[in-house]
Amino acid sequence: MLHVKSVEEARPVLRELWATGKSIGSVHTLGALHAAHAEVIKRSAAENDQTIVTVYPNRIQLFPGSVYQYDLGADLALAESCGATVVISSDDEEMYPPEYATFIDQGQAHHRLNSSVFDFASRGQVTGAIRWISLCRPTVSYFGMKDIEQALLVQRAVRDLLIDCEIRHVPCVRIAGTGVPVSSRLRFLPPERLAEVGSIYTMLEAGRQMVRDGAHDADAVIDRMRAMLDKSLSTFQVVYVTIVDVEQFAPLSRVESPFILHCAVTDGDLHHFDGLCIRTPEDLANSPEMIWLHDAGRG
Amino acid sequence: MLHVKSVEEARPVLRELWATGKSIGSVHTLGALHAAHAEVIKRSAAENDQTIVTVYPNRIQLFPGSVYQYDLGADLALAESCGATVVISSDDEEMYPPEYATFIDQGQAHHRLNSSVFDFASRGQVTGAIRWISLCRPTVSYFGMKDIEQALLVQRAVRDLLIDCEIRHVPCVRIAGTGVPVSSRLRFLPPERLAEVGSIYTMLEAGRQMVRDGAHDADAVIDRMRAMLDKSLSTFQVVYVTIVDVEQFAPLSRVESPFILHCAVTDGDLHHFDGLCIRTPEDLANSPEMIWLHDAGRG
Repeated sequence: MLHVKSVEEARPVLRELWATGKSIGSVHTLGALHAAHAEVIKRSAAENDQTIVTVYPNRIQLFPGSVYQYDLGADLALAESCGATVVISSDDEEMYPPEYATFIDQGQAHHRLNSSVFDFASRGQVTGAIRWISLCRPTVSYFGMKDIEQALLVQRAVRDLLIDCEIRHVPCVRIAGTGVPVSSRLRFLPPERLAEVGSIYTMLEAGRQMVRDGAHDADAVIDRMRAMLDKSLSTFQVVYVTIVDVEQFAPLSRVESPFILHCAVTDGDLHHFDGLCIRTPEDLANSPEMIWLHDAGRG
Repeated sequence: MLHVKSVEEARPVLRELWATGKSIGSVHTLGALHAAHAEVIKRSAAENDQTIVTVYPNRIQLFPGSVYQYDLGADLALAESCGATVVISSDDEEMYPPEYATFIDQGQAHHRLNSSVFDFASRGQVTGAIRWISLCRPTVSYFGMKDIEQALLVQRAVRDLLIDCEIRHVPCVRIAGTGVPVSSRLRFLPPERLAEVGSIYTMLEAGRQMVRDGAHDADAVIDRMRAMLDKSLSTFQVVYVTIVDVEQFAPLSRVESPFILHCAVTDGDLHHFDGLCIRTPEDLANSPEMIWLHDAGRG
């Protein structure tokens, strides 16, 4: 596996790669890779000749002034073990020189779901992803459905900007038994608080089943979901429970497929988001595909 | 020369082109090609193995509801005569389906110069250009300095988004003797009104010479330029005369290279913009490079 330490150093490497005509999968990360990243990288490696992983904690999607903890050495080792052939890393100095001025704007969609709490997040995520995709020119780029907002908006941006790249969504990776999504934000939580987080997934699944069984009034479904959640949470509080469309994430009054069930909770410090993206009758009948992790310790 | 009539039809053609490893120049137009486009296309053809010309009157950069007049057959003939190897055309239906949602945002720069008059123009221009560049993956893409705002902001966007493409600026094409820039907007003006338009170039040149000769106070230079212009105009009125920086187009108080002298005039219906982009000591000493057209009838 080749590790290139800057965009500048990556350019000639990428040009050589493109010239081979081989298929390229890409996985764009903030670093601190874990079992869910491992699943995404493995999928890319299985489906492409080359897999590029980028590791850079994209400043503009993170809370201003926060420091994102990651261990580049460990990330390189994980990427390699999952079949990555190239890792590109960079830093704030290279990625955001003082004259930097360009952002991807998708209107109201950038101010809903996760970004109703962190207003900069969605615009920053999509801008970051489009930059890496523009740099790497992957045949396919992989985005985990843990972050529904990012996965759908990056796909929208790639289509709108006419970029010749397929966005492939990888099911959310969850811990078997609890339903807790694998996430770097949750890595420091003790087991009893993870059980609380798991109850969000239980509530989302209950909401899906209500709609599947004929409930179409969004407010009524949300009220019942929220009541469930209020009972299960102790150290977290609900920020929102919502049902929105899959394009602009606008709240729906009548629930019909496709739709997104989405929820945010906070303990005043940590925010956690979870959701189910129901795109097809099969998703509604059986729940969207998940990757269940039976050994929570790995990665 | 190959004419492909949609983005969808262009995809396999482009993939074949990329696979050859040949250099690709691109010129992105709204149609209604004229002598200035001809110069840009010829430059691309001279400097690259392949030249792609795109012809599409990009809806989001034009006045809402307006109809941009162009003759695709004539545009194809002109492109071919200048050395284009591929022309891609499209239409509103393909370019802006109802779910279209993605725009390039460069902050305040999109609301100054031309876009202080037409607020949608700059964002639409840059978004349009980035879409065609993302589609075509040119080695070099050519932008005329007639539209300073677009030429600089597209370069900024390509750098910021890490797109592997060189943006090459082609000097503004002007009619020898009058200084009138060749522009589709001016094509229907009678000679006496073109002489008025020419006086704007005379004023811009006078402003450059004032700064070259030691004037640094922007307001004083602008006042003198504006007084010159007020004397020369009869059917047009000044909208603004300004001196701005070359990154964000913010007004300067002290004029030092690099800077842009820029002017907008209107007759209440037609708006005309002209400017000089002074990037180097040579530009300041001798004026930026121009392409002088001695036979105004051609193209």
